[in-house]
Amino acid sequence: MQQRSEETQARILDAAVRRFSISGYNGASVDEICSDAGVSKGAFYHHFPTKQAVFMELLNGWLGTIDTGLKAVRQDTVPQTLLHMTGMLPTIFASADDRLPMFLEFWLQASRDDAVHQAMIAPYRYFTDYFTSLIETGISEGSLKKVDPEIISQAVISIAIGTLLQGLLDPDRTNWSRVAEQSIQALLAGVIKN
Amino acid sequence: MQQRSEETQARILDAAVRRFSISGYNGASVDEICSDAGVSKGAFYHHFPTKQAVFMELLNGWLGTIDTGLKAVRQDTVPQTLLHMTGMLPTIFASADDRLPMFLEFWLQASRDDAVHQAMIAPYRYFTDYFTSLIETGISEGSLKKVDPEIISQAVISIAIGTLLQGLLDPDRTNWSRVAEQSIQALLAGVIKN
Repeated sequence: MQQRSEETQARILDAAVRRFSISGYNGASVDEICSDAGVSKGAFYHHFPTKQAVFMELLNGWLGTIDTGLKAVRQDTVPQTLLHMTGMLPTIFASADDRLPMFLEFWLQASRDDAVHQAMIAPYRYFTDYFTSLIETGISEGSLKKVDPEIISQAVISIAIGTLLQGLLDPDRTNWSRVAEQSIQALLAGVIKN
Repeated sequence: MQQRSEETQARILDAAVRRFSISGYNGASVDEICSDAGVSKGAFYHHFPTKQAVFMELLNGWLGTIDTGLKAVRQDTVPQTLLHMTGMLPTIFASADDRLPMFLEFWLQASRDDAVHQAMIAPYRYFTDYFTSLIETGISEGSLKKVDPEIISQAVISIAIGTLLQGLLDPDRTNWSRVAEQSIQALLAGVIKN
């Protein structure tokens, strides 16, 4: 039964990603999600008290994936760590793919919904602080120039988000994960000491 | 009568911005927009055939503002032009302000709606091509290093978009227009020849 329950939950989450991507958080109904997932409303509410709970589960899964990825790449020096991170972008982008509209939906919903905002703001600040302290370490160890660590941290995050959005709008134009990688490398070229 | 008609149209557009920001494009109804604007449904449909037409009018207004801003800042050399552009960001951000969720909504809607996608993709490509050719000129005139012009163009756009999104999520954290300005300057520091 445990396994079947997990399968049901996974089917609901998959259907919800598609529905949120097509109709948006506000436009998607629990009825549609149930119908797509092939589960009864009773089964749905057994797993999730509300539509928002499904959304939050997807959000937390996304944030968890990013966090795991970031922690896995710590290298000997800060420039090595930063460049190794940019090298991971193709994998992150490939795994995102059809979930892209969903990620953007999280962002938009956070500006409208206090619970979503609360859930996003803490990890968002955690990520910016993580990059900021990494860059501070680089300045201390003498491998990075004396830049404003917070600005560079926010610029790295801007490039990652901004490239995802451009890829959503114009997917066939170019290889967007390569663009993200090379954009961050171009930024770091002015920051890393030769 | 002409003046009154323009006032009605402006009231409908203002109400639509608020409604789209609160409920999203799919969640906002023409009834709500009419009620907020204090106009009858007859008056609404006199000005706009559909909800999508209102959305497109707002989108085109936004794109027009950006285009006018860009064309106004051409300077003698490419580095001067680029730095002058980043200096305009505070004004652009200030004028955006409460319309931010709306801009994000355009982006999201473009991934769902062919007409919105068509309306966004051409000006988006126009802007990236504009920056790309500006950077190519800089490389030719010898004021910029031999970078990949398209990557730097896409990186500049990523920083602008990414900073807008971070400002939407965490508005009180910092002065986001300054962050956009300084982030692009940090990128350009590695691109402009000393």
